[in-house]
Amino acid sequence: MANDEVILLGFWASVFGIRPRIALEEKEVKYEYREEELVGYVKSPLLLQMNPIHKKIPVLIHNGKPICESFIGVEYIDEVWKDKAPLLPSDPYDRAQARFWADYIDKKLYDPAKKMHTTKGDELEAAKKELIEVLKVLEGVLGDETYFGGDNFGYLDIALIGFYGWFLTYETYGNFSIEAECPKIVAWGKRCMQRDTVAKTLPDQQKVLEFAKLVRQMIGLE
Amino acid sequence: MANDEVILLGFWASVFGIRPRIALEEKEVKYEYREEELVGYVKSPLLLQMNPIHKKIPVLIHNGKPICESFIGVEYIDEVWKDKAPLLPSDPYDRAQARFWADYIDKKLYDPAKKMHTTKGDELEAAKKELIEVLKVLEGVLGDETYFGGDNFGYLDIALIGFYGWFLTYETYGNFSIEAECPKIVAWGKRCMQRDTVAKTLPDQQKVLEFAKLVRQMIGLE
Repeated sequence: MANDEVILLGFWASVFGIRPRIALEEKEVKYEYREEELVGYVKSPLLLQMNPIHKKIPVLIHNGKPICESFIGVEYIDEVWKDKAPLLPSDPYDRAQARFWADYIDKKLYDPAKKMHTTKGDELEAAKKELIEVLKVLEGVLGDETYFGGDNFGYLDIALIGFYGWFLTYETYGNFSIEAECPKIVAWGKRCMQRDTVAKTLPDQQKVLEFAKLVRQMIGLE
Repeated sequence: MANDEVILLGFWASVFGIRPRIALEEKEVKYEYREEELVGYVKSPLLLQMNPIHKKIPVLIHNGKPICESFIGVEYIDEVWKDKAPLLPSDPYDRAQARFWADYIDKKLYDPAKKMHTTKGDELEAAKKELIEVLKVLEGVLGDETYFGGDNFGYLDIALIGFYGWFLTYETYGNFSIEAECPKIVAWGKRCMQRDTVAKTLPDQQKVLEFAKLVRQMIGLE
């Protein structure tokens, strides 16, 4: 598949957009990354054409054909480029578990995480409590393993790592230390950052905080 | 896997619970079906033990190990009992498309569908409009195929068929004909009902309507 054309439409601060991007990096697939300017809510004609249903990034475009939704993109990448860096476990039960916890992240972590910079007062406090609870559950899933994928960086690591880029933002607006609450998750995030595939794609936490400040101003919270 | 112990925790009227059940039927796997009495909100100790995170059906229990979430269960069944009745397409792009539309059903169809018997007035009218729009999109995906899986009943058929059991309920409270709006979807539902695997598991539409009436009474709408 040396002549494949692979394009990824993403947004640098998105916890979803990073997933297929890191999957492509892990597989060492050559791809063109195109940044969507989502802050001003101007969506490119290509995004609207390739994902007319949800009109959202990430969209993976492989030889002209779109694959939408982050986890579907990661599974597709794992299936097409299967000879290198397997992302999902090979055992069906382990695969089901990885999918379960990835789904849990989207269902339970995303909402409180988003509220950390888009709400204030009691709503923010409730979100913070929920965020910590969910991170503690995930810390229990990680246990004493190097990665969620055990010795190998995999699907569930990819599912969660985008949130690590936002940790400083959560801490700043929640006025707390994630490391004090979930030391193993923070250590895991640092280990992930030692991988080139993550280090060169995950946004700097300070830059994310600046972005979050901008969003707060736009929605009238600051 | 002749000596496997397979138990499925479900609820007869659930659009989610039916998914792994039909998958097991299609694979001709012997399983024990256990009905959860969800109407009175009494959850069995086994359900709480096997799905402590979401406390929801369906839960597939294979040799004592739980697999939660309906689509994850269907994929697991497809991977473990892979020699018979493949449910997901073999081509990675077709698989991604099947997963995309299955995800679309949960993200876009479930909410308006649920509101058809749990709301009234303007909220019900808005839900009805949304429901029809989503069903029309799905009708476009089906096109002139026999099944969403083409000639073969598959993953996306399993994703949607549970809603067909509720069509009379949607029509009754929405005061409209789905067949008039989406004739191909209704014809598809009838074709699915000709399969033993569906006919013996999908609840009767009249019985579902009686259940919906009960729910409306419980929440004070009737």
